[in-house]
Amino acid sequence: MTSSNNCTSANTRCRAALSLAWVRADEYRGLIDRFGSADAICTASASALEGAGLPGEKARRLAEPDAAAIDNILEWVDADGQALLMVDDPDYPPLLAGIKDPPLCLYVRGDVATLTLPALAIVGSRNPTRGGIANAREFARHLAGIGFTIASGLAEGIDATAHDGALEACGTTIAVMGTGVDRVYPARHRELAHRISAAGALVTEYPPGTPPRRQHFPERNRIITGLSLGTLVVEAARQSGSLISARLAAEQGREVFAIPGSIHNALARGCHRLIREGAKLVETADDILGELAPLASHLLSEHVESEAVEKEPDTASDEHQNLLNAMGFDPVSVDDLLPRSGLTIAELSSMLLILELQGKIEKLPGGRYARLSDA
Amino acid sequence: MTSSNNCTSANTRCRAALSLAWVRADEYRGLIDRFGSADAICTASASALEGAGLPGEKARRLAEPDAAAIDNILEWVDADGQALLMVDDPDYPPLLAGIKDPPLCLYVRGDVATLTLPALAIVGSRNPTRGGIANAREFARHLAGIGFTIASGLAEGIDATAHDGALEACGTTIAVMGTGVDRVYPARHRELAHRISAAGALVTEYPPGTPPRRQHFPERNRIITGLSLGTLVVEAARQSGSLISARLAAEQGREVFAIPGSIHNALARGCHRLIREGAKLVETADDILGELAPLASHLLSEHVESEAVEKEPDTASDEHQNLLNAMGFDPVSVDDLLPRSGLTIAELSSMLLILELQGKIEKLPGGRYARLSDA
Repeated sequence: MTSSNNCTSANTRCRAALSLAWVRADEYRGLIDRFGSADAICTASASALEGAGLPGEKARRLAEPDAAAIDNILEWVDADGQALLMVDDPDYPPLLAGIKDPPLCLYVRGDVATLTLPALAIVGSRNPTRGGIANAREFARHLAGIGFTIASGLAEGIDATAHDGALEACGTTIAVMGTGVDRVYPARHRELAHRISAAGALVTEYPPGTPPRRQHFPERNRIITGLSLGTLVVEAARQSGSLISARLAAEQGREVFAIPGSIHNALARGCHRLIREGAKLVETADDILGELAPLASHLLSEHVESEAVEKEPDTASDEHQNLLNAMGFDPVSVDDLLPRSGLTIAELSSMLLILELQGKIEKLPGGRYARLSDA
Repeated sequence: MTSSNNCTSANTRCRAALSLAWVRADEYRGLIDRFGSADAICTASASALEGAGLPGEKARRLAEPDAAAIDNILEWVDADGQALLMVDDPDYPPLLAGIKDPPLCLYVRGDVATLTLPALAIVGSRNPTRGGIANAREFARHLAGIGFTIASGLAEGIDATAHDGALEACGTTIAVMGTGVDRVYPARHRELAHRISAAGALVTEYPPGTPPRRQHFPERNRIITGLSLGTLVVEAARQSGSLISARLAAEQGREVFAIPGSIHNALARGCHRLIREGAKLVETADDILGELAPLASHLLSEHVESEAVEKEPDTASDEHQNLLNAMGFDPVSVDDLLPRSGLTIAELSSMLLILELQGKIEKLPGGRYARLSDA
């Protein structure tokens, strides 16, 4: 991830133009190397851009953007709780920035900060069994309850159930869309999308107004898995999009989890196939925690280090220290800690998870937490 | 496996004495190296045996055997369809002879020849679910139907169902017992044991009259897995004897297969644990065939080579050639082949499986077989 500063960071008009021209992150990095700043890129001529290696059609669209489409995006970004992130912004999710082909631009409705929390993707069939639905809900609820953000694709079936389970636990959830943020698909998930943006974020690389198109959904999958430490496949047919997501996650170096099932359940076949290919067989949420804990600690410490270089003061650490101080050294329940810490339940759960993964606190039986003596 | 000849082979009285003294196969091999023949071992004094490294108690029991117990075994062996094999007999199952601690003596009731057929062990819980019972029956029936011998332990639940499934398919099945052959345990499986000895074999390392003892059953497990190319665990609790069997099979270099199930089924936990430890996840009988085919071909070719050295003429190959001749070069069904070959359905199925694994014939859709042109 290129670090952000005032010299290279693009203004909103420029971001909109880059997004509309479908400039890729690697192309953008090449242009920055050549032109020095986003401003210089966005004021360059089509021939200068093409000379710098940008394909002709993209160069033309970037140099001569559609004014109405730009205005449309500017207006969208201007609304409360909406943002257009670029890959070199400090707010851009670092795990996603680390994949081979991160989206250059991310349209976000909701809380941008939720995109950097430790996330688990939960995906699966659009036509799951009742058992699959129950499992998706239970895993989402449990993992969101202990502070994981649940990422999914807002589709019917497992996706929608995973989002809903996270919301039931008053946790955070992120829906990655294959359309513009304003074009919820399927339309019957509009109310769900609204609740997700209030408790997490809706995310897409497609500008407002983009309708559903078949090819967007596989592309969206790399964002779901790329945002997440790991991907859990709940139920999937032997040939299905969820298997493609799982393989993407593995290629991105992320953990892949799959829930087994009866050999007579056709929707267990995809999970069994993944397990044969090396996915971790999951019976309980603890199986996931056990695998993700070291990974999350590692990634969080990397993130904290890179933030420490960029930011001053180190707000994340201050917040953690405040919470540790609020805990004292006696075991304390989340209910007691909530008023003491002044945090929301979602913020508190996330922070407790991070501190637990960092080995600074310990979770005790009965859901209480204790600060460890050397923290 | 030490090859058998008239100089070293033990007479029945000597075998009975070795069995009653609990001489191990490795101890027996050491004694043969020292004394030159079984006869010389069985006429040696206790002090000579002890001087050759045999523990004192065993040396005493071997040099001064219990005459009544010996007579009891001699009478048992004298009956039709009963045999006492030793590890260096040509009839002793070669796969079992290959394990670290093969039984020195095997009491067999039934057809000794079935012990050298390609076998799959099917084991699991004594208290399986209805789904587990259905799976055990279906896999046993299917695999016995295509010529695999099904080995198991005659216990309640999965074991008994696997034997029964093989019998339903008119296939062969082997029950390895933790008691004397005449002391069927549990007693309610007496009728099942009778049917097994008629269509395969009852096998044990314990002399006639040995009652069930707790420690015999884990020891019996190494014989079940040792006789078999692979072991399929159908349902098992997270801590259970079936898991011990599966680990024994893996240590013996054999394939381990496990059927997954719902995460809410406690008897799927043992199978899931095995899968995590490297067992092959099995959805259909074809998953087993795919893994065993190369292994079976390899082991069969080794067996054929060692037989070719020992025997003249090479009866196995003659029988196979006779069957290939009976097939001709047009696809033929098993029903048509049965009268032409003059074999029983069990013999024919086994031989077809072996020829298929050797790449000499091909199974066509609709259950017909075709000879391959270079066979």
